[in-house]
Amino acid sequence: MLGKLQGWSDTIAALATPQGIGAIGVIRVSGKEAINIVNDLFPSKDLEKQPSHTLHVGYLKDGDKTIDEVVISLFVAPKSYTGENVIEISCHGSHYVQQQIMHALSNHGARLAKPGEFTQRAFLNGKLDLAQAEAVADLIASNTEASKRTALKHMRGGFSGILKELRDQLIKFSALIELELDFSQEDVEFADRIGLLTLLESIEKQVTQLLQSFALGNVIKNGVQVAIIGKPNAGKSTLLNTLLNEERAIVSDIAGTTRDTIEETLNIDGILFRLIDTAGIREHTSDIIESIGVERSLEKMREADVVVYLFDVNETSPEDLKSIVEEFENKHIKYLLIGNKADLQPLETYASKFNEIPRIIFISARENRGIDSLKRQLFVHAIGNNNLMDDTVVTNARHVEALEKIRQSLQDIIEGLNNKIPGDLLALDIRRCLHYLGEITGEITNEDQLDYIFSKFCIGK
Amino acid sequence: MLGKLQGWSDTIAALATPQGIGAIGVIRVSGKEAINIVNDLFPSKDLEKQPSHTLHVGYLKDGDKTIDEVVISLFVAPKSYTGENVIEISCHGSHYVQQQIMHALSNHGARLAKPGEFTQRAFLNGKLDLAQAEAVADLIASNTEASKRTALKHMRGGFSGILKELRDQLIKFSALIELELDFSQEDVEFADRIGLLTLLESIEKQVTQLLQSFALGNVIKNGVQVAIIGKPNAGKSTLLNTLLNEERAIVSDIAGTTRDTIEETLNIDGILFRLIDTAGIREHTSDIIESIGVERSLEKMREADVVVYLFDVNETSPEDLKSIVEEFENKHIKYLLIGNKADLQPLETYASKFNEIPRIIFISARENRGIDSLKRQLFVHAIGNNNLMDDTVVTNARHVEALEKIRQSLQDIIEGLNNKIPGDLLALDIRRCLHYLGEITGEITNEDQLDYIFSKFCIGK
Repeated sequence: MLGKLQGWSDTIAALATPQGIGAIGVIRVSGKEAINIVNDLFPSKDLEKQPSHTLHVGYLKDGDKTIDEVVISLFVAPKSYTGENVIEISCHGSHYVQQQIMHALSNHGARLAKPGEFTQRAFLNGKLDLAQAEAVADLIASNTEASKRTALKHMRGGFSGILKELRDQLIKFSALIELELDFSQEDVEFADRIGLLTLLESIEKQVTQLLQSFALGNVIKNGVQVAIIGKPNAGKSTLLNTLLNEERAIVSDIAGTTRDTIEETLNIDGILFRLIDTAGIREHTSDIIESIGVERSLEKMREADVVVYLFDVNETSPEDLKSIVEEFENKHIKYLLIGNKADLQPLETYASKFNEIPRIIFISARENRGIDSLKRQLFVHAIGNNNLMDDTVVTNARHVEALEKIRQSLQDIIEGLNNKIPGDLLALDIRRCLHYLGEITGEITNEDQLDYIFSKFCIGK
Repeated sequence: MLGKLQGWSDTIAALATPQGIGAIGVIRVSGKEAINIVNDLFPSKDLEKQPSHTLHVGYLKDGDKTIDEVVISLFVAPKSYTGENVIEISCHGSHYVQQQIMHALSNHGARLAKPGEFTQRAFLNGKLDLAQAEAVADLIASNTEASKRTALKHMRGGFSGILKELRDQLIKFSALIELELDFSQEDVEFADRIGLLTLLESIEKQVTQLLQSFALGNVIKNGVQVAIIGKPNAGKSTLLNTLLNEERAIVSDIAGTTRDTIEETLNIDGILFRLIDTAGIREHTSDIIESIGVERSLEKMREADVVVYLFDVNETSPEDLKSIVEEFENKHIKYLLIGNKADLQPLETYASKFNEIPRIIFISARENRGIDSLKRQLFVHAIGNNNLMDDTVVTNARHVEALEKIRQSLQDIIEGLNNKIPGDLLALDIRRCLHYLGEITGEITNEDQLDYIFSKFCIGK
């Protein structure tokens, strides 16, 4: 398969660090000729004669023209990220300088890498399987503890390990069936049908669990959309400020980090909650929906994974709240009921006032009371009964697609067994199932699919 | 001096690559404890026992929590950029991951570096003099061949070398004067006064040349502001497109580079020409000044380093052009006269029509004729008779300030010699002059000044 890939023998180069203002930038070069090409530009030392995993300081020159003073990181094949010869050039953070280096590399025989091409080569050289390679992109995109941990786990082969185990079980099953085929004339059943069924059902259960984990995987990877709604003066903007100010305090603790996206997001125990249209809530508290029947707010609620309905416990009657709850239920909207301003009377008073309506969280946004309960409820709503630390979670839509086909083939095999279909037909279904398993880890794949998967990476990775 | 600097014994850390989306990021750690601190987070190997200039792949862990898979670059003092122990952590390009690493480093005793603090330490450890350190920031900010080359030259000590030579000459002169002081009772003049004057005048000439080079230095560092003006239908937007399209073609040749600023700039042989308010020219050709007397256009012309006055050679009378030239001259505006649409008749016809007005460049923007002449004239206008490749050019306003004080003290010494003032007074002036020379390279300096200079750097450098 490897030989067929276009450009496989090329040496590729790309800026691996972000564009923009920084002290340094790193240009990555990979391929059989990587050391050779950079050597042409690095007169102070013969890089071909240096051991792997060493650093070399010197001037990068294109002919007579000095381009920059750089540090060269040398990785000799196969001990590198891609499995090929790799050189990383750490240069000054000037866009112009980086452009000149790319130009010089290209003049000496390297070509610009396609997005994800370094990782694609790592995959093709057996450094990573496909699920691990995909996790690299997820790791780069990770923005919370949960998303980072999941990506890192997949990258280290946690998910691939589970798939391998399923595969091994299936192959064992397959071997027994094939054995029967060899003796088919003799009408022998080597494989204990009941035992086989149990095995298949256990595999199918695991696959189903993995499929179900995708809901959580999605939460981990993309966060949870939250709409905070309520009548004017329910205290939406106070609640928002209370939630976000704390967040801001935590983040500004970590000096030197950007805070671009914090304004609109809330990180609760590693899960990202995205607040929908908070700017609107802040600036136009008055024009936010008067009754929840209004079309525009309905739309916002449908967009959300959960609606936080905020009401003033002093001004809201149990009847009004009940009719709102009914509307949520009728429209199949997931919601949390938050009773704000529960600071004028003892909590018991409010609890008994609304005692017919279950699961209200009483808070005082102004006095920062009950906010932790609110956060805990949001978190529980997002992850359900899952154990974030230990469970293996599917986060990739491509894997879900393959897992669904796997489950379908497993069900076909089970049905076949129950209907006592001939062994050779069973064997076909098993092979189909193994095929889909192999698609996830990349043992079975094709060029177009690979190109598509890696095209979603950033350049330089 | 070193001991006095606050935080000097700290270990510092910062993201050295730009914030944003990229495959990898690099976090730099420097200080006595740099290796020790990172070792705490890198269980797979004892970094303390590894040789300098080596690379180490492994997982970064904070206690039980795995942060990321990283590559460690190890530089053992004094063989590093700062002269201290330096570790560079090459991690995945996730903002979250980088934040976690900074957090872990900070928990283990490093603190966030101030802007330019790595380079400041390099200076304090004698790795760079101050003028060289300042060139590092210029190199990072460089965006053309000329600005990069000048910064690189200064960084490599080209400018410092010239200053050192001036200093050596002055010290020699000073020694002779001091010798006279020792023998003052005997009324001996060891120093040949004529020879001394010649030496001083030669030094002053060099300083003046350096000062004069600042105009060019400014052009190299900041580019040239160009205003293209002219009556409606003179062809301004056609000219602009002709100039910029070519530029764009050159740039898009270099794959994978951003083109953000190209729209408004023109790179001619390594000098950047910034076109003032080109958007205006493009979009509102009709409301551009009808006569050059209009206030708004005058303002634009004053803002510009050079005004390109474009006129239609077929529609403009020599008299009209003459009165415009007079107005430029009266207002001390630097200008180029560009006769456009010189494609209807032979060039000689136009040359003789305007034969009383010197230095008109005839072009046809539409047919892309004469554009190279126009560019050459812009370039010549910008750099004058200077040799961009060889001349040492001052690009830093702080250096200009010091050089002006140096020139003043030199003139004081010359005047003193001519007036035969006593040797001890001469010696004072010489010491003042040496002081200012030392200020440029940082041999003489103070904390506040250093802090100010390095505060203009980016973090991580």
